[in-house]
Amino acid sequence: MAKNTYMRWRLPLVCLLWEVAMIVLFGVFVRFGAEADAHWEEEKREMNLTSDIENDFYFRYPSFQDVHVMIFVGFGFLMTFLKRYGFGAVGFNFLLAAFGIQWALLMQGWFHSFKDGKIFIGVENLINADFCVGSVCIAFGAILGKTSPIQLLVMTLFQVTLFSVNEYILLNLLHVKDAGGSMTIHTFGAYFGLTVTRILYRPNLEQSKDKQGSVYHSDLFAMIGTLYLWMYWPSFNSAISDHGDAQHRSAINTYCSLAACVLTTMAFSSMLQKKGKLDMVHIQNATLAGGVAVGTSAEMMLTPYGSLIVGSVSGIVSTVGYVYFTPFLESRLHIQDTCGIHNLHAMPGLIGGIVGAITAAAATEDVYGKEGFIKAFDFTGVYQTRTPSIQGGFQAAGIVVSLLMAFVGGAIVGGILKLPIWGDAAAENCFEDGVYWEVPEDEESDVYHMHNPDKPASP
Amino acid sequence: MAKNTYMRWRLPLVCLLWEVAMIVLFGVFVRFGAEADAHWEEEKREMNLTSDIENDFYFRYPSFQDVHVMIFVGFGFLMTFLKRYGFGAVGFNFLLAAFGIQWALLMQGWFHSFKDGKIFIGVENLINADFCVGSVCIAFGAILGKTSPIQLLVMTLFQVTLFSVNEYILLNLLHVKDAGGSMTIHTFGAYFGLTVTRILYRPNLEQSKDKQGSVYHSDLFAMIGTLYLWMYWPSFNSAISDHGDAQHRSAINTYCSLAACVLTTMAFSSMLQKKGKLDMVHIQNATLAGGVAVGTSAEMMLTPYGSLIVGSVSGIVSTVGYVYFTPFLESRLHIQDTCGIHNLHAMPGLIGGIVGAITAAAATEDVYGKEGFIKAFDFTGVYQTRTPSIQGGFQAAGIVVSLLMAFVGGAIVGGILKLPIWGDAAAENCFEDGVYWEVPEDEESDVYHMHNPDKPASP
Amino acid sequence: MAKNTYMRWRLPLVCLLWEVAMIVLFGVFVRFGAEADAHWEEEKREMNLTSDIENDFYFRYPSFQDVHVMIFVGFGFLMTFLKRYGFGAVGFNFLLAAFGIQWALLMQGWFHSFKDGKIFIGVENLINADFCVGSVCIAFGAILGKTSPIQLLVMTLFQVTLFSVNEYILLNLLHVKDAGGSMTIHTFGAYFGLTVTRILYRPNLEQSKDKQGSVYHSDLFAMIGTLYLWMYWPSFNSAISDHGDAQHRSAINTYCSLAACVLTTMAFSSMLQKKGKLDMVHIQNATLAGGVAVGTSAEMMLTPYGSLIVGSVSGIVSTVGYVYFTPFLESRLHIQDTCGIHNLHAMPGLIGGIVGAITAAAATEDVYGKEGFIKAFDFTGVYQTRTPSIQGGFQAAGIVVSLLMAFVGGAIVGGILKLPIWGDAAAENCFEDGVYWEVPEDEESDVYHMHNPDKPASP
Repeated sequence: MAKNTYMRWRLPLVCLLWEVAMIVLFGVFVRFGAEADAHWEEEKREMNLTSDIENDFYFRYPSFQDVHVMIFVGFGFLMTFLKRYGFGAVGFNFLLAAFGIQWALLMQGWFHSFKDGKIFIGVENLINADFCVGSVCIAFGAILGKTSPIQLLVMTLFQVTLFSVNEYILLNLLHVKDAGGSMTIHTFGAYFGLTVTRILYRPNLEQSKDKQGSVYHSDLFAMIGTLYLWMYWPSFNSAISDHGDAQHRSAINTYCSLAACVLTTMAFSSMLQKKGKLDMVHIQNATLAGGVAVGTSAEMMLTPYGSLIVGSVSGIVSTVGYVYFTPFLESRLHIQDTCGIHNLHAMPGLIGGIVGAITAAAATEDVYGKEGFIKAFDFTGVYQTRTPSIQGGFQAAGIVVSLLMAFVGGAIVGGILKLPIWGDAAAENCFEDGVYWEVPEDEESDVYHMHNPDKPASP
Repeated sequence: MAKNTYMRWRLPLVCLLWEVAMIVLFGVFVRFGAEADAHWEEEKREMNLTSDIENDFYFRYPSFQDVHVMIFVGFGFLMTFLKRYGFGAVGFNFLLAAFGIQWALLMQGWFHSFKDGKIFIGVENLINADFCVGSVCIAFGAILGKTSPIQLLVMTLFQVTLFSVNEYILLNLLHVKDAGGSMTIHTFGAYFGLTVTRILYRPNLEQSKDKQGSVYHSDLFAMIGTLYLWMYWPSFNSAISDHGDAQHRSAINTYCSLAACVLTTMAFSSMLQKKGKLDMVHIQNATLAGGVAVGTSAEMMLTPYGSLIVGSVSGIVSTVGYVYFTPFLESRLHIQDTCGIHNLHAMPGLIGGIVGAITAAAATEDVYGKEGFIKAFDFTGVYQTRTPSIQGGFQAAGIVVSLLMAFVGGAIVGGILKLPIWGDAAAENCFEDGVYWEVPEDEESDVYHMHNPDKPASP
Repeated sequence: MAKNTYMRWRLPLVCLLWEVAMIVLFGVFVRFGAEADAHWEEEKREMNLTSDIENDFYFRYPSFQDVHVMIFVGFGFLMTFLKRYGFGAVGFNFLLAAFGIQWALLMQGWFHSFKDGKIFIGVENLINADFCVGSVCIAFGAILGKTSPIQLLVMTLFQVTLFSVNEYILLNLLHVKDAGGSMTIHTFGAYFGLTVTRILYRPNLEQSKDKQGSVYHSDLFAMIGTLYLWMYWPSFNSAISDHGDAQHRSAINTYCSLAACVLTTMAFSSMLQKKGKLDMVHIQNATLAGGVAVGTSAEMMLTPYGSLIVGSVSGIVSTVGYVYFTPFLESRLHIQDTCGIHNLHAMPGLIGGIVGAITAAAATEDVYGKEGFIKAFDFTGVYQTRTPSIQGGFQAAGIVVSLLMAFVGGAIVGGILKLPIWGDAAAENCFEDGVYWEVPEDEESDVYHMHNPDKPASP
C-alpha cells in the first residue's frame, strides 16, 4: 500500500508554528539566571562571592559540552549503523533534539526554576534540557527508520512534557536521587519508546529486511557515536551532582563501570556465537550499559569495585539481551526495537535504579561522614528525619513511577502517532533515507544495483 | 589546457621558508605571558592572586579546546562533502590553519600583546589565533577544490595580516564589541573569500561538474564537521568574553539561537523543494547560521527569546540563500562559491553585525545594572562618555570597515593568486584529490580485486 | 598453513577471569581519594580549602576528558586506515584500553598512591591510567592486523606492568621530569612494540599485501583519529603538570610545536615523492611527531620558538622515517611495523627525551625565577642539592632505562606471544576483520556489484 510521505507543507508548518510558539513562550517566561545576568556584579556581592571566576559557569560548562556531544554526535552517530538510514539517524536526531531542548527549558523551568512568574536559566538548565532530550533520543532508537520527522516532533513534544512531570515527581515529591538519570532518563525513555513501537507495530516489516543491516563503513560511523557516549559518560553522570566530592566520585565510578562493561561485553559477544566471532552490534551498544547502570548510584559511595561489579553485570545482561531477548520481543510481543534500546537502556536502567536504591539503603554515617551523609542525600528541612532504608524505599518507588509513566504515556502517545496523518512510510520503504531526504544522485543507481542484483545494469 | 600542478619543489620551498621565518620571528618576539612563565610565583603576588588555581588557564582552556576542534575538525570535515575532495578538504584545511595560527600569534601579538619589544602570549592568544584562522577557513570554503596548496598558503599569509589590521581598527580604534566575531571573522572572512573566488572566476568549471556533488558517505563525514561546529559554537562565542556573567550569557544565547536555527532550516529545506524532501546541504550548513548571527550580540543582554528570533531568521535566510542566491551569484555575478559561504557566513555575519549594533544601541542601565553596563561595553577611560546609541553607531561602522577591508583586500589577494605560478589545476581537474594527493591506487578496481582475488584485473 | 583462530572459549575465558581478578583486587585495594570521598567535608578543612570548587576535579577533569578521547577515538581511529581492518582497529583498541586502565589503576596505585594498605584514587589517577594505556596503544600500532585479541590482552597485562615499573624508576628513583611522557609513554611504548613485532616476525606477510593498504574512506576515518590526537595533545602534555604556570606553559609549547610540525611534514611529504604529491600516511602520522617530541620539555621553559624548532625537526625526521626507515626496518631488520610507530613515536620520543635533558640542563634561576626554579624541577627535600646539569644527566639516564626496559621486556613478552596457543591468524589472513569479527554479510558481493554494474550478479 502506497503511503503519502510528502512532507512539503506538513513538516514546515509544524516546525515553524512550534518555533513561533517557543519564541512567544520564551519571551513571556525565560530570563537569564543571576550568574548569567549583567546585574551579576550586584548579585555577586549578595551571594558572598568575591570574584567572577566563582561563577558556576566554570564548574558546569565543561561537563555540559561533553553531554551536548553525547546527545548530538553520540546518539546521532550511534544510529548511523543502518546501511541506508544515516541521514535520518543523524539528521532527525538533530531535529528532534534541537526542538526538544527548547521545550525542555520551558517545561523543566516551570517545575524547577520558576520564580515571580519567570524562569531563570543558567548552565545547569542547559544540561538538564540536554538530559531530558536524551530520553527522547533513546526512544527514537526503538522506532528508528519507521517514522516520519513529524511523528518524531510530536513524540518529542509529549515525551519532554511527560519526562518533566515524572522528573518532578521523583526529584521533588519522592525526594529521590538520580543524578545520572538511570530512572528518569533511561528507564523512562526506554520503556516509553518500547511502548510506542509496540503500538506502532508493523506486521510487514520484513519487507524492508534487506535494509535493516549495516555495511562495513556504516558500522564504523556508528563506532564514533559509541565511543563518544562511552568516553563522555563520566561527565554525563557527574554533570549535575553537587560540587566537590560528589561530582568527583561520580566520574570515577562511571569510568570504572564502563571499563568493566567492555570486557564482559566482548566475552559474551564471542561466547554466544557459534563461530565465536565478535559482533559489532554488541560492541556498539552493550559496552555502554555500564554507564546507564550506575546512573543513580555513581554519586553515592558505590566504591570503585562496586562499580566494576555493576558494569560487568550490565554488560552481560545487555549482550544476552541482544542475542536472546530482542528476537523474542519481536516475535512474541511484537515489539520491533530497531536499535535494541531494551538491552542498552531499559534493562540497564532498571539495574541502575535498583543499585541506586540498594546503595542508598546501605548508606551509613560511618561511610559518608556526618556532614557528607546529610549532604549526599539532602537530608535537610522536611527530609531531616529520613533514614537510609526509607530513602531506599523511595528510590524503589521512583522506578515504579517511571515505569508507569512510561507505559501509560507511551501508550497514549503511540496511539496519537498511529493516526494516519503524519506521513510515515510504508513497510517496504522503512530504513530508507530516500523517502525524506534528497540522496546523492549517483549513489542511488549504485544502491539500486546493490539491492537489485537481478535487475540489469544501467546501459 | 594542461596546467603544471607539480608541487615537488614549490610547496616544500614555501612551507620550509615560511616555517624558518616563523622560528626567527618567534625567537625575536614571542615570550610566555606572566601566567605561563616560571616567574609566575612572583607575578602571582603582584597580581594579588592567592593560588595557582586562579591562573587564567583554567577559565579559558576548555573553551580554547572546543574552538580548536571547530577549526580543525569542524571546518575540515564540513568540507569533506565533495565525493573526491576529502583529502584536500581536511588536509589543506589542516595545513593552512597550522601555518595561520603561527602567523596570527605574531600579527595579533604585535597589535594587542606587545610590550617592551616582546609579544607575551597565554591561552587567550591561542584562542584569538584560532579565531583569526577561522576567517581563513571560511574563505577557503569559497575556493574549495579550485586552488593549489600554495595558493592557500599565500592567501593565509595575506588574510591573517588583513584580519589583524581590521580587528585592530574595530576593537581598538572604533572600540567595537565583537566577541564571537560576526564582523571580524564571518563578515570579513566570507566577503574576502567571495571576492577572491570572483577574481579567480573559472568559466569552464562545469567541466568538473560530476565531481562537485557528494556521495552518501561523504555527506555523513560532513555531518561530523557540522555537528562539532554546532555543538561547540557556544564556546566559540563565549571564549574571549569577560569572565563571569558575560561568558555565561554568551553560551546561553548561542545555544538558544542555534536550536531555533535547526527548526527553521529544516522547515525551509523541505518547503523550497518540489518533492518536499530535506537537503543535506542545508542541514550541513544553514543550521549553523544561528551561531554566526549572534556572534556580536551573544555576550550582550540579547535575552534567550531574542536569540531564538535571531536564530530563526538566520536559518531561513541561509536556506533561502542556498536555493536562490547561490545559483544567482554563479550565473550572474560569476561568483563560484563551492561551499556556499555566502549563505552560511556572509549574510548571517551581516545579520550578526546589525543585531549587535541594535542590541548595543538599546542597552540601558536598567537592563545591565549600573556596574554591569560599564563592564559590558567597557565604557571606561576615554570611552567613559559613550552612550549606547553612539556605541550602536560605531558597531555599524565596524560592519562597513570589515566589508571594505574584505572587498579591497580580497581583490588584491585574488589578483596575486591569479598569477600563473602557483600550480592550480585545470578546470576539468578541479574537485579531484588525485591532483595533489597520492590516492589509494585505483579505488574501484582495488575493491574489485580485494574481494575477488581470483578474478583477473580489469583490462 | 591453516591456524586455529576460533575464539569462542578462549577469549571469553580470558576476559571474564581477568575482570573477576580486577574486581577482587579493587575490592581489596582501591578506595576513593580524599577529594572524591564523602568525608571530604571534614578533609576539606584539614586541607585548608574553603570551598568545594577548589576540588582538584575542576582543574584536571577537562584535560582528563581530552586525554580519554585521544586514547579511545584518537588511537582507535588513527588505525582504521587499513581497508579491511577498521573493526579490529577501533574494537581491539577499545578492548585493550578498557582492560589496561583497570590494571594500570592498580599497578600505578601500588607504586604512587598506596597508603595504609589501600590505593586512593582521584582524577589524576584516571589520567595516569590513560597515559599508561597510551603506551600499549602505541605498541598495538606495530602489530596491528597480525595478532589475536587474546595476544593483545596478554601484551597489555605485561606492558602495563612494565610501564609502571619503568615509570617508578624514572619518576621516583631518578627523579626525572616527564609530564608528557616522551620517555615513559612514547620511547618505552614504541621500542617495546617494535621488539615484540620483531619477535613475531612473519616471513610470509606479503601474502596479505593487498590488504595492507587503505581505501579512500578509510583514510578519512583515520584523519578523525589524527586530528583528535593533534588537537588535544596540548591537554595530554599538560594534564598532570603542576597547577598554574607549568600547565599553562605546557599547553602553549605543545600547540606551537604541533603547528610547526604540520608544515615540515607537508614539505617533506611532497619533496620525497617523485610526483611531488602529498601522502596521507605522512599527514596522518608525522604531523603528530611534534607532540611527542616536546613531551618531556613542554612544561619547562622551552619557549615558543624552541617549540617551533623541535616541532619542525621532528616532522622532518618522522616523514623521512616513513619514506626510508620503515622499508629498511622491514627488509633488513625484519621489523614489520604496520603503523610506522618507529617514525611517529620511537624517534620523536627519543628526540623528546634528549630535548628534555638539554632543556633541564640549561635551566637557570634567572629564567625560572628563584621559586619557579625549585618548583619546576621539584628541587626539594633530598633533591635540594641537585643542579640543572645533574638533572640533565638523570634525564638522559631515563632515556637509557626506558630503552632497556623496552628491549628486554619486549623480547620476553614477544616470546610469550609467540606460543601457538593464542589464536593468531595465518599470514594470508592478516589485516582482515573477517577472522575475528562478524562482517556485514552482503558487503562483499555488494561492493562487487556496486563497482561492476556490468558484471552479472552472483548466481
